[in-house]
Amino acid sequence: MTENTKIVLGKNQYGKAGVRVVKISRDTERHEIEDLSVTSQLRGDFDAAHLEGDNGHVVPTDTQKNTVFGFARDGVGSPEEFLIRLANHFTGEFAWVTGGRWEAEQYAWERIQTSAVSSQGQAEGHDHSFVRKGQEVRNAVVVKDGDTIQVVSGLNDLTVLKSTQSGFVGYPKDRFTTLEETTERILATDVSARWRYSPEAIANGSVDFNKSYHDVKALLLEGFTEGYSYALQHTLYGMAQKVLEAHPEIEEVRFSAPNKHHFLVDLTPFGLDNPNEVFYAADRPYGLIEANFQREGISDDSNAWDGITGFC
Amino acid sequence: MTENTKIVLGKNQYGKAGVRVVKISRDTERHEIEDLSVTSQLRGDFDAAHLEGDNGHVVPTDTQKNTVFGFARDGVGSPEEFLIRLANHFTGEFAWVTGGRWEAEQYAWERIQTSAVSSQGQAEGHDHSFVRKGQEVRNAVVVKDGDTIQVVSGLNDLTVLKSTQSGFVGYPKDRFTTLEETTERILATDVSARWRYSPEAIANGSVDFNKSYHDVKALLLEGFTEGYSYALQHTLYGMAQKVLEAHPEIEEVRFSAPNKHHFLVDLTPFGLDNPNEVFYAADRPYGLIEANFQREGISDDSNAWDGITGFC
Amino acid sequence: MTENTKIVLGKNQYGKAGVRVVKISRDTERHEIEDLSVTSQLRGDFDAAHLEGDNGHVVPTDTQKNTVFGFARDGVGSPEEFLIRLANHFTGEFAWVTGGRWEAEQYAWERIQTSAVSSQGQAEGHDHSFVRKGQEVRNAVVVKDGDTIQVVSGLNDLTVLKSTQSGFVGYPKDRFTTLEETTERILATDVSARWRYSPEAIANGSVDFNKSYHDVKALLLEGFTEGYSYALQHTLYGMAQKVLEAHPEIEEVRFSAPNKHHFLVDLTPFGLDNPNEVFYAADRPYGLIEANFQREGISDDSNAWDGITGFC
Amino acid sequence: MTENTKIVLGKNQYGKAGVRVVKISRDTERHEIEDLSVTSQLRGDFDAAHLEGDNGHVVPTDTQKNTVFGFARDGVGSPEEFLIRLANHFTGEFAWVTGGRWEAEQYAWERIQTSAVSSQGQAEGHDHSFVRKGQEVRNAVVVKDGDTIQVVSGLNDLTVLKSTQSGFVGYPKDRFTTLEETTERILATDVSARWRYSPEAIANGSVDFNKSYHDVKALLLEGFTEGYSYALQHTLYGMAQKVLEAHPEIEEVRFSAPNKHHFLVDLTPFGLDNPNEVFYAADRPYGLIEANFQREGISDDSNAWDGITGFC
Repeated sequence: MTENTKIVLGKNQYGKAGVRVVKISRDTERHEIEDLSVTSQLRGDFDAAHLEGDNGHVVPTDTQKNTVFGFARDGVGSPEEFLIRLANHFTGEFAWVTGGRWEAEQYAWERIQTSAVSSQGQAEGHDHSFVRKGQEVRNAVVVKDGDTIQVVSGLNDLTVLKSTQSGFVGYPKDRFTTLEETTERILATDVSARWRYSPEAIANGSVDFNKSYHDVKALLLEGFTEGYSYALQHTLYGMAQKVLEAHPEIEEVRFSAPNKHHFLVDLTPFGLDNPNEVFYAADRPYGLIEANFQREGISDDSNAWDGITGFC
Repeated sequence: MTENTKIVLGKNQYGKAGVRVVKISRDTERHEIEDLSVTSQLRGDFDAAHLEGDNGHVVPTDTQKNTVFGFARDGVGSPEEFLIRLANHFTGEFAWVTGGRWEAEQYAWERIQTSAVSSQGQAEGHDHSFVRKGQEVRNAVVVKDGDTIQVVSGLNDLTVLKSTQSGFVGYPKDRFTTLEETTERILATDVSARWRYSPEAIANGSVDFNKSYHDVKALLLEGFTEGYSYALQHTLYGMAQKVLEAHPEIEEVRFSAPNKHHFLVDLTPFGLDNPNEVFYAADRPYGLIEANFQREGISDDSNAWDGITGFC
Repeated sequence: MTENTKIVLGKNQYGKAGVRVVKISRDTERHEIEDLSVTSQLRGDFDAAHLEGDNGHVVPTDTQKNTVFGFARDGVGSPEEFLIRLANHFTGEFAWVTGGRWEAEQYAWERIQTSAVSSQGQAEGHDHSFVRKGQEVRNAVVVKDGDTIQVVSGLNDLTVLKSTQSGFVGYPKDRFTTLEETTERILATDVSARWRYSPEAIANGSVDFNKSYHDVKALLLEGFTEGYSYALQHTLYGMAQKVLEAHPEIEEVRFSAPNKHHFLVDLTPFGLDNPNEVFYAADRPYGLIEANFQREGISDDSNAWDGITGFC
Repeated sequence: MTENTKIVLGKNQYGKAGVRVVKISRDTERHEIEDLSVTSQLRGDFDAAHLEGDNGHVVPTDTQKNTVFGFARDGVGSPEEFLIRLANHFTGEFAWVTGGRWEAEQYAWERIQTSAVSSQGQAEGHDHSFVRKGQEVRNAVVVKDGDTIQVVSGLNDLTVLKSTQSGFVGYPKDRFTTLEETTERILATDVSARWRYSPEAIANGSVDFNKSYHDVKALLLEGFTEGYSYALQHTLYGMAQKVLEAHPEIEEVRFSAPNKHHFLVDLTPFGLDNPNEVFYAADRPYGLIEANFQREGISDDSNAWDGITGFC
């Protein structure tokens, strides 16, 4: 060891991950289900725990887990609201906890359609039997730092494909370029998108997170669908535009989107043509496009984004 | 080596797995998409390849892959029909290929809803933009042995949950029993089901595989939903009944179903009650129930089931 | 429902899967670790549970889990011996349990090398600190049916590669063949192998399962390595020979082995040669070779293999 | 759309991910293998592509992939050196590419031990047959921004466990606390660690990345092993100390470490004691500890860390 080595603790956080809580609301015959995986991580003064083995400040991760279950007794509502309640609780309860990061995934269920009559009538689906929807996974992140609360909502794994109205031309060529230009290809991606709400909208409690979520998802799908795609980058911009134009409470949208290549199979060795009908869907390697879009004048550097995977 | 060791080749098969083929039908403005992962495996006389390194009979797995793409040029239709075409091709083309096993998974897509008008009108969704449905995965297995073709259709990962009308009582107790009886619990499982069509129905070509698939899925959901569940085993029987009663062309149904435990969280240490509202959804360990149901008099031992994972 | 539909229960089994038990032996300063995931499934008379909702015979899966932990108190020894103890327990304890299937995966750990002195001296590694080995996963299946016990041992995911001494020539060509012959390629696979012990060896308790396991693994590696490979099928035969010749207590060996393609990259467009140096390792599609080898005169149809995934 | 919505492009990068390249060095009878998955992402002026669909600056991801293969022709050496070569190439070749991010995972292989004689003698293992080591995955990230190159090296999934010399006491209690204090428990984690080299060490080319990697891994294991653990946080500090004291070229170390709970099973209902011998290894939820350690005076905010998953 060199004489002048002094080691200090940098940024740190700790907590419990993967707390899978299922809340059934059963006040009436028609049950509601909320299904989340919650992660709670605390930030603050934890130097002694790291440097001296003194756990006097370490709220056990087990306690954080218990708190999640305890808070679920009063309902979830939306993942964002639930996480904000947790954030306020931990920072209020322990003086040295000055902030933290709370994250959730939520899994969607739909009511099973059956010939049995429900309390809402048959067409509305069963009162207490559900099938997991299985499409995208909704997520939310709440970061609290002192009195400031930031909220980033999002979704993962919304797999979309357009079978025409996509091409890729006009790119630079060099010694390593073998790709052929095309004006007709399949465009497919697994959309991972996150959007950050303005601190003002969060502070004044004006956001209806569930409504906003469903609307943003619909706009992302619409943005993907509309128009000719000159590149996945170009399509992402169109998707962001839809969201930012319709939702003034959202300041920025970020994407991480694989370009899931669908290669046209060369059938000529077998004596067959292939007029954009038969494709080989490749797994790896894949294109990877990350792009952030924001209202003009907004900072790029909110720490709300720290720890969100796969976004630049 | 002991003098009397003579080693022989037993059952064997080989081929290409994971051939991911996407077929776009674009004869009209309104495109159709079929998205499959196909596995082709040949059976027959391959002794020389194994024992002597003589590949004279080894139709390359690369050729099997090419054939899948070539055949997709003429359309897929249903995974079952596509696999039967492959089976007949390989056994007809190569004298020493006396049979084989062909398998497919199919991934469902739905049309994106958008304000853009489609050729069918707006409510029917977009003509060429799709979002992956993401619920269960459909699958099919075709086994050919000489002139006999057998077909097993199925689905994986149809996750269902009922929030009441389920209990578990009356079981035997011994030294290791700590489980409490309950008449009110959550029942949840990922349904994996497979159903085998009668050889006669296959031989006379009377099965509409797509229609049958969608109907069986609906019946499985309905069977899961209806009535009080005394145990997952009991519920599976109800599901099988629905299918076998409505589909005379199906001879048997097999299930592999995890009992996905949702444990009621004890909130009393926190001063809270928990009237069946807050549950912890555990991953592991899990109950695992496998059960086969069949029409009376049907043999249990069709080799159509060999190699189908997780069924007894 | 047609009048003559009578539905009967076919083969069935049930139990608890994924019971992850870690046993530390700490009689001395030098600890030992055994780390297993156990699945227990019972077979017998469970008609009433399925058909009538009567659980009088249903030993809870929770009890099966508890029994695994209780039995671990007396040590594991080897996964095979542990499963045999469980099999004998359940069939002995409950009259209607006439058999079952018990399965385990075992994860290997090695001692951490450190400058600290252990009770065995420094070179032998630490007394109570371990790092997971992470290579193959060992597994075992015990099937009991009446008084007969069968044991199949195995391993998964032993990834091997030879960078020369492999080719593929002499195969039949047809319209769909585009593959070029080669006498120099990379051969790579993830070995999944299972071997069944003779009922006599099991009955007379003469097998040292741990010793046998380590020896078979070494022989599989040696068999993969030695000689020129004319095809993966040919190499699997060489591997089986090694095992069956050296281990008279083993009656048969089965393989499920992907051909993990390593494609030579064509660098000529970039003005570079590629003398078998740069390869693209593809994931999908992949070749899939399944082959069983056995002593002459042994039956192919032991029910010990039911439910073992991916073997034909 | 509100009148004043102006949307701008924020941070962005794009490229090809999952380029799996296997390089065999075969100049001599004794082959060497290097096995990597490479991701290349470019940063710079890509506004027109996003905002206008003009791809004039978009070096295709396919070209980036080709370049990886082309560069592998000259060897890899270490993932860090290979990525630096790629970084310099892309920023040198295209004026508008002002930087980027290059990432690699490397998979370790060991030579198969066999009775066959190798060119190095038998004990040194086979010349051209390999088995994948399967322990941790090595990784590297190179970020170039203008003329500055930063390098972060790391490893994932190094699973370690100590069966004694660990406890957790002295933590704060509140209404939601049910955890019991213990001075004797199992401590287990999957170490994910990353260490950043000082810009000076990178600039002057003095780092032997392969040697450094193997040494850091050994120090991490040693740090985990030594001493009594008062909490995982405390142990991580000990591990960081080992690395930073021995490696002046490293400025900081970051950890993301799950606390993999091993719960002592209560065997008393079965009439058995359990003196820290039988544990249930849980998957979820798990503790999650993230902590960064650095030399005093070093900035916490190097953008080298952007996009590295799971570190705070």
